[in-house]
Formats: sequence, C-alpha cells, structure tokens
Amino acid sequence: MSEHELAPSDRVRLRRKPQRGRYDAETIHAILDAMPVCTVSCVIDGQPIGMPTVQWREGRHVYWHGSAAARLMRAAEGAEVCLTVTILDGLVLARSALHHSANFRSVMVMGRARAVTDPAVKAARLRAFLEHLYPGRWDTLRPMTDAEMKATAVLSLALDEASAKVRAGPPVDDAADLASPVWAGVLPMRLTLGAPEPDADCPGDLPPPDPATGVSWG
Amino acid sequence: MSEHELAPSDRVRLRRKPQRGRYDAETIHAILDAMPVCTVSCVIDGQPIGMPTVQWREGRHVYWHGSAAARLMRAAEGAEVCLTVTILDGLVLARSALHHSANFRSVMVMGRARAVTDPAVKAARLRAFLEHLYPGRWDTLRPMTDAEMKATAVLSLALDEASAKVRAGPPVDDAADLASPVWAGVLPMRLTLGAPEPDADCPGDLPPPDPATGVSWG
Repeated sequence: MSEHELAPSDRVRLRRKPQRGRYDAETIHAILDAMPVCTVSCVIDGQPIGMPTVQWREGRHVYWHGSAAARLMRAAEGAEVCLTVTILDGLVLARSALHHSANFRSVMVMGRARAVTDPAVKAARLRAFLEHLYPGRWDTLRPMTDAEMKATAVLSLALDEASAKVRAGPPVDDAADLASPVWAGVLPMRLTLGAPEPDADCPGDLPPPDPATGVSWG
Repeated sequence: MSEHELAPSDRVRLRRKPQRGRYDAETIHAILDAMPVCTVSCVIDGQPIGMPTVQWREGRHVYWHGSAAARLMRAAEGAEVCLTVTILDGLVLARSALHHSANFRSVMVMGRARAVTDPAVKAARLRAFLEHLYPGRWDTLRPMTDAEMKATAVLSLALDEASAKVRAGPPVDDAADLASPVWAGVLPMRLTLGAPEPDADCPGDLPPPDPATGVSWG
C-alpha cells in the first residue's frame, strides 16, 4: 500500500507542527485498522455534531453503520463529514508545563458520505466489518434477514482527503530546563483485552474468539 | 453532584434506544473525568471538522487548550462546537450479526466555545488540567513564562447542554437464536498504563508520578 502518497488538500494539510503530519496510505490505513472507535462529525441545522461510532476500512474507503432510522445516519448521508480516529499511546511528562504532551496517532478523513444501498453490496460490507473484528465468525451466524438488512444503514467515505498526525517519543524540553529535578519521560498506554465473559446462555464448551486473529487494537 | 439533573435539550436528547441516554451530572462528569481524549467538532467554511484533543472538567465547564496560533482553536472560539468523549468498555458478541455491539460510555456536549483570556484565570485552568492528570506536579515545575502563556489558548464550554450514552452488559439476542452453537458474551477492554519510561536526561533516582493518584483512566 505504501506506493500511495495522498496529495494533502489544503483542508487536511497540517499547518502547526507539520513534522507530525503523515499523508501516506500505509500510515493512514494502519491507524484506521487498529482503532474501530471513531467520531463522525457532521452539521445539522448549522450545529456541528460529533457522533461516536465504529468504522472499518476496505481498500480506499472507510465505512460505518447504524440504524436506518437514526437521525445522525440520515443527516450524514450525502453530506460533508469528517471521520476522526484517535489512538492514545502515552502521556509525555516534560520539565515545564508547556512541553507536556501525549503520544498519539490520529486520522482525519473528510468528504461526502455516501449510502451503500445495493443489498448485496451492503451485505458484503457488513460481512467484512464483522470479519475484520472476528475472523471466521460471519459464517457461524445465521444469515441476516431482509428486515435486519433493511433496518441497517451503511455509509461510506472515500479516503481521497485524509491526513494522519503522529507524536511519538520522549518529551522535548527547553535546554535550560534539562537539569530540573523532576521526573520526565513517557507513561505508555494501551487498550487491552480482558478475559472473555460468556453470557448466561453460552455453552461452557464453546471457545471464545481468539483475540490473536482479530484487530490488533492500538 | 447527583442533585443536578440536566434537562436534555432537543438536540442532545437520545431518540434511538432512549434507554441508553443519561442526563445526570454525576454520569456525565464521571465519563469526562475518566477520559481526557476527546474530539472537538466545529464548522469551517461549511465543512465539519473533528479535531482530536484533550479535555478536562472543572465544575460545570469542560476546557481544552492548544496553540493560540492554531487554525482550529481560532475557528472554535465563539463558535458552536460539539465535544465528544468515548470510552470503549468491551466488544459484545451476539448470536446474530445484527445484535453485535460494543459496551461503551460516551458524552456529547454542545454549545458555544468561549476563550479564557484573563491571564490569571488561564493560569488557574492550566494548573487544574495538569493537576488532574498528575496531582502535585505543577508546583515542582518552573512557572510558565508570559510568552508561553500568551502562546497557549484555552477554550471552555459550559455543560448546559450535554448527554451521555451508555451500553453495558451481555448481548441481547433474539429468543429464537439463543440455542445457536456460537460463543456469545463480552470481550472486556480497558486502557492500561505500562511501565514508566524515563527519558535520557532523567536522573535514575527520581520516582515517576504515582498512577494511583492521577486520572482513573476509563
């Protein structure tokens, strides 16, 4: 994928701390693939709304889904949106208040959201979503009914206008502060999976999904 | 704080799955306090932008900060914004594709962002932010210079119009699917702190901040 270098449009190009900006597909795809949780921002009656939801990527598009009746899904369809993913990698403690920071990887994708309407295409997208999270699971479930498919809206956004922002590494202190007697460094953070909790109706001899085969979170 | 019940305005009231909506200050404050990472959505030239940043709460306001020269800080000042916080608590695996879900706690705050301009007030807000993350640390750092203070913008948003959305617990399956021979339950997730990584100039005998005294992440 690294052959794709997206030419950053004016509205996604980083102006402050440009050294943190990345526009290559490899970096952008890796962040999107590692963090399904996202915020989709759209405008309703002039008011910006940032809706938390879950995204997945296939090729050069990101997708998200929701109830076909949901106000925010209907508002986003055909409208300009911004999809934001943030992975927190750590807290950066410096020797002055100003240089405290966070290590993170984030992506912003801008463009017009499009509805996936063809039932077969929608089914393929939903299958890909579930298979991204839980490889091999889709075929163990009963097929989605027509009514379920109709009640589910899927929106897509092309990765034509996207940027990543990455901060990593230790604090960057002013030289004059380096002798200050305060602890400075990074407190790394990571999203981790706990022990699976089968529900009350789950037979005890069924194995939970192998987390090693799903999303490498963060 | 639990005496405050915010009357949900029409634009923050949950319509889909209203049982997941919470409007009490106790719930909203607890989510904001447990997850500094947020997305601030605003509108620039008609285009929604969701900017990843870090928020903190004091009383009935949330705050975030950035470079005073940053385009997105200047665009948000005095403008309608939406601040969104999402904590992922787990993945919910059901017996049908439709009922797969996530356990999460999220907050959306809407309103007009205001700049904190008085230098003394701004200093107090920044101090509160650092003390929220690292109690006791502010007084161990050299004071912020006037130039640093001037270069830092702080924006605030009243918690007048806010809602939380919470999903917890096992999957909710259709009764007809309960006998399906697939694993169903919750894969819990949590943001965890790793071992502190002092930087190259940090004397080895300085103890890192005690994570037990800072934010209870998630």
